[in-house]
Amino acid sequence: MKKVYVNELKNHLGEEITFSGFVDVVRDKKWVQFVILRDSTGKVQMTVEKEPAENASMVEQVTALTHDSVIKITAKVVENEAVKLGGLELIPSNIEVLSKAEELPFDYNNLDGVNLDTRLDYRWLDLRNEKNMLIRQVETALTQGMREFLYANNFTEIHTPKLIGAASESGSEVFEVKYFDRKAYLAQSPQFYKQMAIAAGMDKVFEVGPVFRAENSNTNRHSTEFTGFDLEFAHIDSYEDVMSLEEDLLIAGLTKVKEKYGDKIKELFGIEVIIPTKPFPRMALKDLYQKFHDKYGFDIPTEDVGDMNAEAEKLTFKLAQEEFNSEFMFITDYAATKRPFYHMRDENGKLQGYDLIWRGTEITSGAQREHRYEELLKNAQEKGLGEDVKFYLQFFKYGCPPHGGFGIGLDRLTMLLLGLPSLKETEFIFRGPNRLEP
Amino acid sequence: MKKVYVNELKNHLGEEITFSGFVDVVRDKKWVQFVILRDSTGKVQMTVEKEPAENASMVEQVTALTHDSVIKITAKVVENEAVKLGGLELIPSNIEVLSKAEELPFDYNNLDGVNLDTRLDYRWLDLRNEKNMLIRQVETALTQGMREFLYANNFTEIHTPKLIGAASESGSEVFEVKYFDRKAYLAQSPQFYKQMAIAAGMDKVFEVGPVFRAENSNTNRHSTEFTGFDLEFAHIDSYEDVMSLEEDLLIAGLTKVKEKYGDKIKELFGIEVIIPTKPFPRMALKDLYQKFHDKYGFDIPTEDVGDMNAEAEKLTFKLAQEEFNSEFMFITDYAATKRPFYHMRDENGKLQGYDLIWRGTEITSGAQREHRYEELLKNAQEKGLGEDVKFYLQFFKYGCPPHGGFGIGLDRLTMLLLGLPSLKETEFIFRGPNRLEP
Repeated sequence: MKKVYVNELKNHLGEEITFSGFVDVVRDKKWVQFVILRDSTGKVQMTVEKEPAENASMVEQVTALTHDSVIKITAKVVENEAVKLGGLELIPSNIEVLSKAEELPFDYNNLDGVNLDTRLDYRWLDLRNEKNMLIRQVETALTQGMREFLYANNFTEIHTPKLIGAASESGSEVFEVKYFDRKAYLAQSPQFYKQMAIAAGMDKVFEVGPVFRAENSNTNRHSTEFTGFDLEFAHIDSYEDVMSLEEDLLIAGLTKVKEKYGDKIKELFGIEVIIPTKPFPRMALKDLYQKFHDKYGFDIPTEDVGDMNAEAEKLTFKLAQEEFNSEFMFITDYAATKRPFYHMRDENGKLQGYDLIWRGTEITSGAQREHRYEELLKNAQEKGLGEDVKFYLQFFKYGCPPHGGFGIGLDRLTMLLLGLPSLKETEFIFRGPNRLEP
Repeated sequence: MKKVYVNELKNHLGEEITFSGFVDVVRDKKWVQFVILRDSTGKVQMTVEKEPAENASMVEQVTALTHDSVIKITAKVVENEAVKLGGLELIPSNIEVLSKAEELPFDYNNLDGVNLDTRLDYRWLDLRNEKNMLIRQVETALTQGMREFLYANNFTEIHTPKLIGAASESGSEVFEVKYFDRKAYLAQSPQFYKQMAIAAGMDKVFEVGPVFRAENSNTNRHSTEFTGFDLEFAHIDSYEDVMSLEEDLLIAGLTKVKEKYGDKIKELFGIEVIIPTKPFPRMALKDLYQKFHDKYGFDIPTEDVGDMNAEAEKLTFKLAQEEFNSEFMFITDYAATKRPFYHMRDENGKLQGYDLIWRGTEITSGAQREHRYEELLKNAQEKGLGEDVKFYLQFFKYGCPPHGGFGIGLDRLTMLLLGLPSLKETEFIFRGPNRLEP
């Protein structure tokens, strides 16, 4: 018989059903045993009276239950207002232990004192924590909302190769793969292939997939593998069109999250999901520097002029809130020297791109791309790029419409949405220089 | 001004609009120039009369246009029943060349005589072929339909790591990665991590992502990287539940394809998209062998007993059509020795899994998984697996519900749907032992 989930029990009052789930808590009282059972949709109480003799074997079974074992029961769903969990309880006629749990290495309901590495070593137990389970559901809803927006706008989903023949943009941070009798590399971004799709005439494409970075740094915001949400679309007039689409996309994603999990996020994380409104505030980098100087007495260090740093990102959030009542702010007019060669510059050398800052952290770099072969070749040469981008430059020789796009780190977005301190908390399974397990 | 797409032109009759697209064809007549323009939604005719003197510079521009250059025009949308393309034409007042195309290395509208390797070398030109463009749209719709079904059934989307610490199931076919001062490997399937999610209590999970196979074989059905559609769900009673879900999933995907592109598939590929009905026929392997013997005089070679081979898959399709009027057939009761250690066997050693054959090719292996630690350990030891699966075995020590699942190769599914001869035609960018480019 098909298992009934906790969130469906209400529809089965008075019926005999099959239920299976984890043993969350056992409370063995003098006359009665209460067992809290758990599945991915919630918790329910199973009640076994000790009195009737025919219950003897079930009572024995319950006594032997270990925490987080999985059991399957045949039970009647009974209304009982005294029961806090949904006002109902399960009265079993049969109990079967499907999977007996050993003693757990730590209490996942109380992770405060638990070493983060231990948690990651036993990630499948760590994920049993209610908050961690919600993180996964929130990321699904966020992706769903964004994807549905793109489907509705006729975007084609692509799956670009992760095994590539050339080390692409910045060879220093790329993983090398033994590929039969030659070398391959792991793609650091789908950038070149998104643009290939545009050159093919696909007009609007997106991808949700893994991105690899061989950075030997152990910060909270970096990992060697993460999930990128990347898109590119053609026939734009300027990077303003790209910013506008990104606004719509984020609004769609956050709306879906709020609809499905807004209340639960508030309950477990104490965070309000705020749906931003269009347009997000925009500011040119030099105006931002001026504001920082005037308002906060902060001047960007010489080495970062033309770009942001961590402190500047934090202040941008402060400014966005104080002056625009916004959590988001677009920053434009970065120095071309600080940006990749494929970002377009106008006839005065002004970069046609932007960063988006949310809650003090950069979440995207977006831009109109250079679609003109001669300009692109010149930009590449200025950056000292040669053979490795030659294959990419070919894409622009046989006609290519103007286009732009951006990439978002999905796990970083989720981290910021839920106010979490580290990607280690938001990636399904974290990967860093010292972590390849489980 | 925002570009109007070809499929939106009807809503702008009589208006002046902006249009941009590829130059598909130029027909220079005595009194008039016809230019067929193309975007991802279709084709439209632009008409330039040579007579009025103010058109002189536009006429000159049109004369210089090369095939597949991208132009942007300001134009009036005019109804004209004589025009085959949608009964309308664009009368431009301004033409701008955005991207001038060099002469193309081959004619993508007529690929019959073009070497496949040349096509793959210039994949972005190959994709301009109408059929190849449709393939990408069909794969998107197929994925969309399947995903929407899973979203509606409360599945959580996961992104499992592709960089893994141990060579997993079958070490011989795994790519090795230089990972700082140690080795990593590329995941051949998300199998272990899908099951980790189940052990974590996530109950229903799926993933669409890359899968890597270091097979040095050059067949039409193999590639070193492809897109897997994988799912796993808990609280099942048997692999019958898994087959039932797979039926629903494929019906959802094919229904979406038929809705969106059924007519166009018929037009370009001459293929009818058939939505199967539940349940698909099922047959045990030994009964299938008997049928083959009785009906087709075919006996499975000794080395393949307990399994299928290519010929058997083809005959299965024949049988499914002749006896069940079905394109699909589930085959069960494979020999446990021919299947992975994590597929469950019952108390008599009977394998609790299946293959699904569609149009003569296996598209899935599915199974109830072994969730009992002791049984799983025994199965692994029988297959001679040791250290490499130790981390995986841990998932089952602390409680794990019964569960099952399957994986589908998305590009293979698309290949079969459209009757294509090779994965080289259906992967966005093909990867094989001799192909890492573009």
